[in-house]
Amino acid sequence: MFAEIKGLNEECGVFAVWGHKDAAQITYYGLHSLQHRGQEGAGIVVTDGEQLSVHKGMGLVNEVFRPEDLTLLHGKGAVGHVRYATAGGGGFANVQPLLFRSQRGGLALAHNGNLVNANNLKHQLEGQGSIFQSTSDTEVLAHLIKRSGYYTLEDQLKNALSMLKGAYAFAVMNETQLMVALDPNGLRPLSIGRLGDAYVVASETCAFDIIGAEYERDVQPGELVIIDDNGLRSERFVSSQPRAICSMEYVYFARPDSNVDGVNVHTARKNLGKQLAYEAPIEADVVTGVPDSSISAAIGYAEQTGIPYELGLIKNRYVGRTFIQPSQELREQGVKMKLSAVRGVVEGKRVVMIDDSIVRGTTSRRIVRMLREAGAKEVHVRISSPPIKNPCFYGIDTSTTEELIASNHSIEEMRDMMGADTLAFLSTEGLMAGIGRDSLEPNCGQCLACFTGQYPTEIYADTLHPHAKV
Amino acid sequence: MFAEIKGLNEECGVFAVWGHKDAAQITYYGLHSLQHRGQEGAGIVVTDGEQLSVHKGMGLVNEVFRPEDLTLLHGKGAVGHVRYATAGGGGFANVQPLLFRSQRGGLALAHNGNLVNANNLKHQLEGQGSIFQSTSDTEVLAHLIKRSGYYTLEDQLKNALSMLKGAYAFAVMNETQLMVALDPNGLRPLSIGRLGDAYVVASETCAFDIIGAEYERDVQPGELVIIDDNGLRSERFVSSQPRAICSMEYVYFARPDSNVDGVNVHTARKNLGKQLAYEAPIEADVVTGVPDSSISAAIGYAEQTGIPYELGLIKNRYVGRTFIQPSQELREQGVKMKLSAVRGVVEGKRVVMIDDSIVRGTTSRRIVRMLREAGAKEVHVRISSPPIKNPCFYGIDTSTTEELIASNHSIEEMRDMMGADTLAFLSTEGLMAGIGRDSLEPNCGQCLACFTGQYPTEIYADTLHPHAKV
Amino acid sequence: MFAEIKGLNEECGVFAVWGHKDAAQITYYGLHSLQHRGQEGAGIVVTDGEQLSVHKGMGLVNEVFRPEDLTLLHGKGAVGHVRYATAGGGGFANVQPLLFRSQRGGLALAHNGNLVNANNLKHQLEGQGSIFQSTSDTEVLAHLIKRSGYYTLEDQLKNALSMLKGAYAFAVMNETQLMVALDPNGLRPLSIGRLGDAYVVASETCAFDIIGAEYERDVQPGELVIIDDNGLRSERFVSSQPRAICSMEYVYFARPDSNVDGVNVHTARKNLGKQLAYEAPIEADVVTGVPDSSISAAIGYAEQTGIPYELGLIKNRYVGRTFIQPSQELREQGVKMKLSAVRGVVEGKRVVMIDDSIVRGTTSRRIVRMLREAGAKEVHVRISSPPIKNPCFYGIDTSTTEELIASNHSIEEMRDMMGADTLAFLSTEGLMAGIGRDSLEPNCGQCLACFTGQYPTEIYADTLHPHAKV
Amino acid sequence: MFAEIKGLNEECGVFAVWGHKDAAQITYYGLHSLQHRGQEGAGIVVTDGEQLSVHKGMGLVNEVFRPEDLTLLHGKGAVGHVRYATAGGGGFANVQPLLFRSQRGGLALAHNGNLVNANNLKHQLEGQGSIFQSTSDTEVLAHLIKRSGYYTLEDQLKNALSMLKGAYAFAVMNETQLMVALDPNGLRPLSIGRLGDAYVVASETCAFDIIGAEYERDVQPGELVIIDDNGLRSERFVSSQPRAICSMEYVYFARPDSNVDGVNVHTARKNLGKQLAYEAPIEADVVTGVPDSSISAAIGYAEQTGIPYELGLIKNRYVGRTFIQPSQELREQGVKMKLSAVRGVVEGKRVVMIDDSIVRGTTSRRIVRMLREAGAKEVHVRISSPPIKNPCFYGIDTSTTEELIASNHSIEEMRDMMGADTLAFLSTEGLMAGIGRDSLEPNCGQCLACFTGQYPTEIYADTLHPHAKV
Ligand SMILES: Nc1ncnc2c1ncn2[C@@H]1O[C@H](COP(=O)(O)OP(=O)(O)O)[C@@H](O)[C@H]1O
Ligand SMILES: Nc1ncnc2c1ncn2[C@@H]1O[C@H](COP(=O)(O)OP(=O)(O)O)[C@@H](O)[C@H]1O
Ligand SMILES: Nc1ncnc2c1ncn2[C@@H]1O[C@H](COP(=O)(O)OP(=O)(O)O)[C@@H](O)[C@H]1O
Ligand SMILES: Nc1ncnc2c1ncn2[C@@H]1O[C@H](COP(=O)(O)OP(=O)(O)O)[C@@H](O)[C@H]1O
Ligand code: SF4
Ligand code: SF4
Ligand code: SF4
Ligand code: SF4
Ligand SMILES: [Mg+2]
Ligand SMILES: [Mg+2]
Ligand SMILES: [Mg+2]
Ligand SMILES: [Mg+2]
Repeated sequence: MFAEIKGLNEECGVFAVWGHKDAAQITYYGLHSLQHRGQEGAGIVVTDGEQLSVHKGMGLVNEVFRPEDLTLLHGKGAVGHVRYATAGGGGFANVQPLLFRSQRGGLALAHNGNLVNANNLKHQLEGQGSIFQSTSDTEVLAHLIKRSGYYTLEDQLKNALSMLKGAYAFAVMNETQLMVALDPNGLRPLSIGRLGDAYVVASETCAFDIIGAEYERDVQPGELVIIDDNGLRSERFVSSQPRAICSMEYVYFARPDSNVDGVNVHTARKNLGKQLAYEAPIEADVVTGVPDSSISAAIGYAEQTGIPYELGLIKNRYVGRTFIQPSQELREQGVKMKLSAVRGVVEGKRVVMIDDSIVRGTTSRRIVRMLREAGAKEVHVRISSPPIKNPCFYGIDTSTTEELIASNHSIEEMRDMMGADTLAFLSTEGLMAGIGRDSLEPNCGQCLACFTGQYPTEIYADTLHPHAKV
Repeated sequence: MFAEIKGLNEECGVFAVWGHKDAAQITYYGLHSLQHRGQEGAGIVVTDGEQLSVHKGMGLVNEVFRPEDLTLLHGKGAVGHVRYATAGGGGFANVQPLLFRSQRGGLALAHNGNLVNANNLKHQLEGQGSIFQSTSDTEVLAHLIKRSGYYTLEDQLKNALSMLKGAYAFAVMNETQLMVALDPNGLRPLSIGRLGDAYVVASETCAFDIIGAEYERDVQPGELVIIDDNGLRSERFVSSQPRAICSMEYVYFARPDSNVDGVNVHTARKNLGKQLAYEAPIEADVVTGVPDSSISAAIGYAEQTGIPYELGLIKNRYVGRTFIQPSQELREQGVKMKLSAVRGVVEGKRVVMIDDSIVRGTTSRRIVRMLREAGAKEVHVRISSPPIKNPCFYGIDTSTTEELIASNHSIEEMRDMMGADTLAFLSTEGLMAGIGRDSLEPNCGQCLACFTGQYPTEIYADTLHPHAKV
Repeated sequence: MFAEIKGLNEECGVFAVWGHKDAAQITYYGLHSLQHRGQEGAGIVVTDGEQLSVHKGMGLVNEVFRPEDLTLLHGKGAVGHVRYATAGGGGFANVQPLLFRSQRGGLALAHNGNLVNANNLKHQLEGQGSIFQSTSDTEVLAHLIKRSGYYTLEDQLKNALSMLKGAYAFAVMNETQLMVALDPNGLRPLSIGRLGDAYVVASETCAFDIIGAEYERDVQPGELVIIDDNGLRSERFVSSQPRAICSMEYVYFARPDSNVDGVNVHTARKNLGKQLAYEAPIEADVVTGVPDSSISAAIGYAEQTGIPYELGLIKNRYVGRTFIQPSQELREQGVKMKLSAVRGVVEGKRVVMIDDSIVRGTTSRRIVRMLREAGAKEVHVRISSPPIKNPCFYGIDTSTTEELIASNHSIEEMRDMMGADTLAFLSTEGLMAGIGRDSLEPNCGQCLACFTGQYPTEIYADTLHPHAKV
Repeated sequence: MFAEIKGLNEECGVFAVWGHKDAAQITYYGLHSLQHRGQEGAGIVVTDGEQLSVHKGMGLVNEVFRPEDLTLLHGKGAVGHVRYATAGGGGFANVQPLLFRSQRGGLALAHNGNLVNANNLKHQLEGQGSIFQSTSDTEVLAHLIKRSGYYTLEDQLKNALSMLKGAYAFAVMNETQLMVALDPNGLRPLSIGRLGDAYVVASETCAFDIIGAEYERDVQPGELVIIDDNGLRSERFVSSQPRAICSMEYVYFARPDSNVDGVNVHTARKNLGKQLAYEAPIEADVVTGVPDSSISAAIGYAEQTGIPYELGLIKNRYVGRTFIQPSQELREQGVKMKLSAVRGVVEGKRVVMIDDSIVRGTTSRRIVRMLREAGAKEVHVRISSPPIKNPCFYGIDTSTTEELIASNHSIEEMRDMMGADTLAFLSTEGLMAGIGRDSLEPNCGQCLACFTGQYPTEIYADTLHPHAKV
């Protein structure tokens, strides 16, 4: 089902809390608000100061956890994780947090991101006798920690992190300490908040709102934050590098109510829509957005152009896991599942259709066709981000270069393939301006690699096929 | 969970098809798009011309039907139903379509609405030896049909319908015919469409878009439509009365992409928002709506006032049946489940909060509090419909008069209870103007009873407690 | 799965209690112990003296009832039912107890048996305007009660019962009274017990043992027992007839720990085995029984002949609903599911294989083959009941006459078809002697119709196809 | 539920097949017949010659595998496992087979038994940088293999096995080879069979009967069997030691239809019953056994003494995972769940009650009480194995020494605690005689440690608390 519409997948969402007597419950609600970052699996590890307990499983947070499961997770500290559906399977062994137990104690790890040197590191570690049960990068960090030779978790972790390249936001917890770390470029978001006396950490700030916590600050690139019963300390494990936060978090992934590195996502999206209106105006009767991710941009485009925003496309809210797919025959007869065009709104109209991004282009083609079948006189496609021409190696499952429609076709070719009357993308300058981060930083502190091909980190030979993992 | 936010419940959604070889599949997708009209139970009866088969159950459409269930429902004609969760239980026996079998054949019935003389009729029927297994009105119709003395289903049905008072949209099917009927005032919506050679009937037109059918017309008040292998015929079973379609379908129930009696719901809602802006403007920084039902009105209000529309409230999409409720303690600490305020948008702002309607007022109070806790400087509540002061006897589960906050309190009292800075409702004139139906008809062809107390039908003594059914 | 082995199906099990504050819980455990009488569906109706509540569903007792379901069933009186899987479907509408609600109150009915004049009665009732939702006989009784013209439930029920022909054990309950009735021949078992001050009624006495109740007596043929807060009263609704309790309850259906009309079933079976040894001895090395129903008879045969009883056949305990059937190919390669022969026991041995009864003969053939494949040198089949030559019209789903192997073949032909070295059945005299009931009553008070063709009741024209029901 | 009756738990069941095109299906049926050895989790790994695929989960075999799961497991070789419910949790990470993946290929491991030096080995391995995700011994073997320094799996495995102490039956598989190994004392059972051209290996021979395979021989103590497309080869990895197969496999664990090291379990149990009759006769009216494990012994006791065997205790077959426990109050009123006494059989009788073994004694006490409440005049308890006085370190989860009733009380004390009239256990000599293995071997080739305290292997300091694992 998701394959019908999606072309982009976020790796994961991470949540952690320290110093709350209902740590597991808090984490459950936190993960819940991060559910859009991953629907394949979910898990929580808690510590009561003496030992770690875990519950995890495949499915949505509210499928994995029953009341009795939560009740068994006593403790003051917790790390939670939601995981997205990888194309190549993965299954239960990849569901996080990973939990390792040794005679000196346990270690839980949860991760959002992608290491570009994971294969090199695995190779080396296997040479030294390590064996792996999952295909995830996270297990690499566990082995590096164990082999570091240092004695405290803090030193082990610093040493291990110094060997990683790529994008990562890690939460690591043993019986008595919670540590979170962000990669030197700060590619992925990670924020810290307060809930009374407790500390909370989350991939997105929307998790703070749902539990009534207050946002405090974002974790800094290359920062290691150590939280325990003595409070919070900040350490660096690597010298500072310019921030390069993923632009697609603003464009597509993050929830509109989150602030990513201080910028509200809905507001950013609305401004991208306005910027797009400025760069690529058109005469038309209605503006409509592809729900849910493009609504904000569509409202911005409408606000800027004065063309009324209308509900020209609607998404069925009840399409779940067990939904029965229409047969090929019914599909050809026009049976839709997830998205449909609203005849009452678009019939006889010149329609501006806003989408957030284009990966393979198949969804856009289908939507243009729907709009025409529902009577739209003209369909003008406007995309609130630049063409995606390059693969992402930082945890976003864009297709390979061959599948990226924009990497092989001109805009005119794409317009033609989609059957749109006109097609325009936002410029990278427009993208930066719309998001509105500090314009003194290089690229306004953003990663733009999938648009420009300029990667903020080194890329290794065997990173080049991001999905050809063991 | 739904109780937290909801105060209004629609009775049901009806879907039917005749003349399609995949009648059950088509009905499955149709019901799917009507899911917002009822989540408690769903069912489909099909006929292959010789016999009726049924599958129904408690839960969402995609929970009730597994692929193998659909496969077993062979036939060219089908009637389907989704049913909402009644306060007083009901359970499986009330899940529709009801199916009766006799030695002369079967009879399936599906219903949306509420009969105001159901108790009288039941009383009479029991006196004559009828016995009832469900608490639904629909069984009354079945008994009336059976006892009518006529020979053909058409005559039986006409005779039976002539005894009903209230609001109803019925679909009735035997082995060889499908019939649909609407009450004399046309209180509930019911539309007819074409899907190739097949006829389809649905409570809302959004069901036509999802299956690729074309809207043809609405069923008329007091009309009986008979569909079989010879095509469609229209009959009247009662003299014409002025149309009085439920206003709340526009305000709240219907899906925004549906056209109700020819008027697009999203557009109507946006216009209600504009009308509200006109009637009750306010100086403020942002306009926000309570998702999902109030977004259209909020956009209209923003468009009209020029105050930017922002996402100040967000609704979690993954709150399902099995979601674990926060404990009282966590709730007090601020853990939310379904709806949260977006600090990044409302902090330090003067907020206009649009909601579609107010029933008991508890939700509004909670939302105002959330907005203030998220830093809103001022909160101005604007409601895109008039105060609900009277119970509905036509299938809408508003609370009893005592529970309706507006029936016992002045607007100023309500404002105070909510903790809002200002509060305003739309006028009934504004309601009619916003929806924009034919202004020559009485009340523009709308029922306004829950606002005005003027009921379009007679009301009986034992109708007066609409939920105190057997 | 069950089809593999089974050829006989019991209609149902009935349980009821009055005067216990945990009536629903008690009924849950009672039904549990009657689970072998029906696995398709289960239900409980309770009364708290003022109103009836119901929970029922498809599946096993412990699948249908979750703790929260039981908790909602408050009351001092309860009627429960387990239902077997009918060939011709039936589904939820047939799950009992049936519950009818009228403005004068509710009525719950549960039934074990089969009416031979159900079709006649339905015909008449439909002529008078009754309509039916299920295919079960039980609904007929409800309509007869309603139409009886009498005022108290007791009079209504007596009047209605007087119109029924066939085999039945009914439990009927309204808000304030529980009534149970047995057909004039007492074809089906029904016992009364005491649990402290409360009364309990059950199809089998094993239900009393599981709840710690004491057996008091069996309900008598043609007796109506009325239980309410004033205690228990006995009435007759029909003149006395000679008892004709189903022989197959002893042979196969009832649980070995039950006493049926005062006779312990395990003991009866063991004696049938001894009787069989006396009538049809053979020289052999081991005696084995088909688990579970033939173990007792096999032990009796072994005890009588002195040939050691061994475990030559074993039944897998974990074959559940969701068990994956082996493909035809694997089946041919010898993959078994439910039953297998024990090579370590039968290899090189002359085996006496005891089974309780033969319906279509396919299971016996398969078992003989298994035993030979496992190395048995000789296989002697001994059946602890006479050949079944006639259909049962009293609630036992034997196949039609054509399918009954014994109605079309001589014993020698059957032996040949099974591939057994020798084959012998118990005589009807042996059957009566083994069970050991009062030999002064006609047929020792047993029904022997499926063996002899002499039915204890009249049989109607349209009873003759017992499964061709509406 | 199981806690009510059980005091002994078997670690696991192992099944493997090589050279069959439906390897996964075959393994499914094999595991099914081993289900009694473990109900907590189940899994299958297959190889198609090129890569390993896995499916595993918590629950029964038929719950873990749906048809579509099996369909995805293509291959000619498979290893499967069923796992018992450990007291201390364990959860999914412990479900086997474990699967490790490296850049050189995959490795699957399945294990039945317990290593007495697991903690020592873990300690050493962790010192060398290994990290562990599960608490199972099996992961230790994986690390030893990986670190062995050898190149082929065969050499790696031999080297690794040489470091293990204790009881183990391992199946190890990579893409191209299946290997099975048994500990030097042969403490656990492991048999080899043929299914056409394919080889099968199973913890018990009942798995061969269900799939139609032929038993070939038992794996020998200290033997490593290598199976691949070239056939089967046998190697030794350790010098021969006297066989010491677990006596409790005969007494309790193994299925009665299995042959353990050539001896049929049912026959052995029946002979234990006869031996017990010889050692501890009593005058009585009926012999009864605790189902299911003690039926064979009870029949033997009855056969030897001439006292008739009757069904005095019955076990409900439908007590599943979701069964609702009776409240304390109902329990006291006599509501039973799993086991009940048959009044019709025991009332007024002198009863000999045979049980297979006594661990904590609570079950026996409850059963004696039940029998008395059902009217037994005398209750004589006879146990078909000697008193268990010492913990097992070989994979059997007996309680700790403190919990073993026989390690702290005299027989007279136990009799008194149980409320039995008399109590007798079988002698160790009687145990050996009854099973009837080769009497020239020390202890007839049996482990008797839990009875005698003489362990066939060394026991280490930190083995002493068998359940206090990491
Ligand atoms: N509760 C929510 N309300 C509004 N938007 C949400 C919510 N949860 C997630 N989103 C947004 O939904 C978008 C993804 O959903 P959508 O576009 O409907 O699906 P897709 O594009 O994956 O088919 C993301 O932009 C995410 O930020
Ligand atoms: N797929 C959809 N997209 C947008 N709105 C929808 C959709 N399905 C139903 N609705 C609308 O949602 C509203 C009810 O949802 P909402 O306000 O979120 O819930 P509630 O008020 O019941 O908590 C109705 O107005 C209905 O028209
Ligand atoms: N808990 C139990 N213990 C022993 N026998 C039982 C139990 N429950 C039911 N039975 C008996 O099992 C028999 C039916 O089971 P079985 O012969 O195994 O199945 P089938 O013949 O239907 O395949 C009946 O005779 C019934 O009395
Ligand atoms: N299908 C079967 N038929 C007969 N016995 C079985 C079967 N499966 C397992 N067993 C035996 O059942 C015994 C365990 O069951 P039981 O005594 O009923 O349970 P417990 O003692 O664990 O409560 C073991 O001895 C095992 O060998
Ligand atoms: S390459 Fe694109 S998707 Fe990947 S981190 Fe950079 S901006 Fe985000
Ligand atoms: S009373 Fe209100 S809710 Fe009911 S039908 Fe009329 S307008 Fe609709
Ligand atoms: S015919 Fe046979 S099965 Fe039917 S009631 Fe009589 S004895 Fe029982
Ligand atoms: S100690 Fe007892 S249970 Fe353990 S292996 Fe030895 S005989 Fe078996
Ligand atoms: Mg999208
Ligand atoms: Mg709403
Ligand atoms: Mg049987
Ligand atoms: Mg046992």
